Amino acid sequence: MTQAIANLNKANTSILKALKCKECGAEYELQATHVCELCFGPLEVKYDYDVLRQSVSRETIEAGPNSIWRYRQFLPVATDNYIDVGTGMTPLLRSHRLARRLGLNKLYIKNDAVNMPTLSFKDRVVSVALSRARELGFTTVSCASTGNLANSTAAIAAYAGLDCCVFIPSDLEAGKVLGSLIYSPTLMAVKGNYDQVNRLCSEVANTHGWGFVNINLRPYYSEGSKTLGFEVAEQLGWELPDHIVAPLASGSLFTKIYKGFQEFTEVGLVEGKKVRFSGAQAEGCSPIATAFKEGRDFIQPVKPNTIAKSIAIGNPADGVYAVEIAQKTGGNIESVNDAEIIEGIKLLAETEGIFTETAGGTTIAVLKKLVEAGKIDPDETTVVYITGNGLKTQEAVQGYIGEPLTIDAKLDSFERALERSRTLDRLEWQQVLV
Amino acid sequence: MTQAIANLNKANTSILKALKCKECGAEYELQATHVCELCFGPLEVKYDYDVLRQSVSRETIEAGPNSIWRYRQFLPVATDNYIDVGTGMTPLLRSHRLARRLGLNKLYIKNDAVNMPTLSFKDRVVSVALSRARELGFTTVSCASTGNLANSTAAIAAYAGLDCCVFIPSDLEAGKVLGSLIYSPTLMAVKGNYDQVNRLCSEVANTHGWGFVNINLRPYYSEGSKTLGFEVAEQLGWELPDHIVAPLASGSLFTKIYKGFQEFTEVGLVEGKKVRFSGAQAEGCSPIATAFKEGRDFIQPVKPNTIAKSIAIGNPADGVYAVEIAQKTGGNIESVNDAEIIEGIKLLAETEGIFTETAGGTTIAVLKKLVEAGKIDPDETTVVYITGNGLKTQEAVQGYIGEPLTIDAKLDSFERALERSRTLDRLEWQQVLV
Repeated sequence: MTQAIANLNKANTSILKALKCKECGAEYELQATHVCELCFGPLEVKYDYDVLRQSVSRETIEAGPNSIWRYRQFLPVATDNYIDVGTGMTPLLRSHRLARRLGLNKLYIKNDAVNMPTLSFKDRVVSVALSRARELGFTTVSCASTGNLANSTAAIAAYAGLDCCVFIPSDLEAGKVLGSLIYSPTLMAVKGNYDQVNRLCSEVANTHGWGFVNINLRPYYSEGSKTLGFEVAEQLGWELPDHIVAPLASGSLFTKIYKGFQEFTEVGLVEGKKVRFSGAQAEGCSPIATAFKEGRDFIQPVKPNTIAKSIAIGNPADGVYAVEIAQKTGGNIESVNDAEIIEGIKLLAETEGIFTETAGGTTIAVLKKLVEAGKIDPDETTVVYITGNGLKTQEAVQGYIGEPLTIDAKLDSFERALERSRTLDRLEWQQVLV
Repeated sequence: MTQAIANLNKANTSILKALKCKECGAEYELQATHVCELCFGPLEVKYDYDVLRQSVSRETIEAGPNSIWRYRQFLPVATDNYIDVGTGMTPLLRSHRLARRLGLNKLYIKNDAVNMPTLSFKDRVVSVALSRARELGFTTVSCASTGNLANSTAAIAAYAGLDCCVFIPSDLEAGKVLGSLIYSPTLMAVKGNYDQVNRLCSEVANTHGWGFVNINLRPYYSEGSKTLGFEVAEQLGWELPDHIVAPLASGSLFTKIYKGFQEFTEVGLVEGKKVRFSGAQAEGCSPIATAFKEGRDFIQPVKPNTIAKSIAIGNPADGVYAVEIAQKTGGNIESVNDAEIIEGIKLLAETEGIFTETAGGTTIAVLKKLVEAGKIDPDETTVVYITGNGLKTQEAVQGYIGEPLTIDAKLDSFERALERSRTLDRLEWQQVLV
């Protein structure tokens, strides 16, 4: 086993081939660039799957580290000097109580609300992007973020000793602002929405020579999301699910889970099968859902207005690819309103003990909507992706989850409060019955 | 391997022997009781180490689940029907930048700030306690908590479908209150400090027949903390460290890490060795540190007054045992003030990208203090335990970590802000030099 792993470590340079344009197929060197010079299409990392097939097996992966780096041959880093802070290998929880509530028989929850180190799936993409940034010689890293990405970039840059400057919209939730500041990056709060932040960052990327994880490093960065496909397949016992439901912001996560499943099939780690891909958006920012419903192959940008700020991208870079995947796999893209999002957060917490942020509430609410519309078969093995933690968006649920019962430190004060709470429960129950 | 595991699963009832008084040795049946009827000493679970030695090996453990339940033969549950929400197997991170800053050569950070599902080490003890509660037939579970325990009990009870009523002091941090409410328990906020909450809960435990994880279920509950010893030993390649530094609240965690190391030695999973045990308290609630410094074998209770609320226990149940362990292993127990605690939080975030709560800040500040006092050898393999997440105690650092630079979505606005931030950095630097 050890010898096999040693061979693999040498092999990565022969696996990584080029950056390739998703539109016209033009190829480029593996540098910090993300747009095709010929057709302006997005660039993606190209691997040699023949070499990959010979060098990885279920056993070599299982013998690897307990993190995304067990899949390193599928990730765009050339050396062994990657940054491993324990990111990934989050639980795939078999749902019992939520499944029962929704009437599903084989529901699983992939819980990145407890991802390491900053409690969102962004730790995956940032671990990969900063590892590559270091290989390419960058000393300052940066990003345009709706919050989670800034948290992750600041934290992992701190660990790696890289200088860091992150950009966020100025109206973010307090937990997301503080969750970046604590790592002492330079934090720029931009008066505007994410799309404006993103445009500004594209200009800065051109002038400052920094590594922007989701701009000039985007082809490497986005590959990190494939691990959410790999892990689910491995955790299901090296099988693909029948149906997945994931949130849609830029659309990148969605397309990369798809790519992860495809690659595992391509190299023979799992048996190929059609997996249905369904996506979730907030009504207040649902350009991808709209395009899907209208059967369009282009995205009409919108101005976001929703509590689900982490997925509020009005002009999603990979939106068209997400629509395409949902269409060709027989999935759906749905949206829900802010009230449904809050109910989704509460539903997941009450049934499974998982406290997710607004993006997760959106995904659960869409899952529920799809089930109710008969668009998920009760017997399909369905995986719902929870991508962030509720402690970062406390504002969203405050006022909707009740208050503690304040009592004196005395038995009779407790007994009175308990009696009161039971009466309340009964009253609420009666209201439900009426 | 599979056959070996099948054998183990049957064996747990023969491994679990009794509850045994830590003081007089009297033995009791494995029921919901925690105090010796003869001498009022605390009860602890007794195992048959001969059976254990024959039935576990490094290989059987490594083949187990990726959670604390890989050590199930060392945990006080009789059946396979335990609650596994992925708790445990948090990263043991080799520290580079913090180690360098402190002048240590072999520092590791055990990071339970990303424990599952509620981001503190309490998920370990609650997973065990609720598994046992279910075996004992309880349908309502409860606890007296400084916050993290309430979060964990509410979440895991929700997952397991148990009724839940949790008690907290009414002055807790907002994140900890909301982090319980979201799971819809009955939440009692008691006007008083933790010790008063705890006294009230003891009365309730006697009258309501509920399973209080840290009162009548305490012998089972506390065993969960051993997994913080087991995991460190396994993650160090089946070796014990030279020195550990952990926070002290009730003192239970500290004594159980010790018991974990002892048990692994006893059954031959690691080579025996003297591990130095050092403990951390906040100055505003340091009854154990005071007893240690004064060489006393009893604890003088105090009234807590510190920002480190999660470890603010003025009358610590296992305080004397913690003092004894620090003494006999050549460790130390130190305390730090609130300003040092905040600096500890910032130091860990800036150097390792880990955002911990006040308890973790206390532990890091004590680590620093011990190093500066020459009480940790730079070449000792030292493990520092981070037990909770900073997103739950945001109040503690607000006002101490600066503000974002608010800018317009324009390149020149960004450039001016960047220049200003660099000037600020230089000024701060000059102030440090002067």
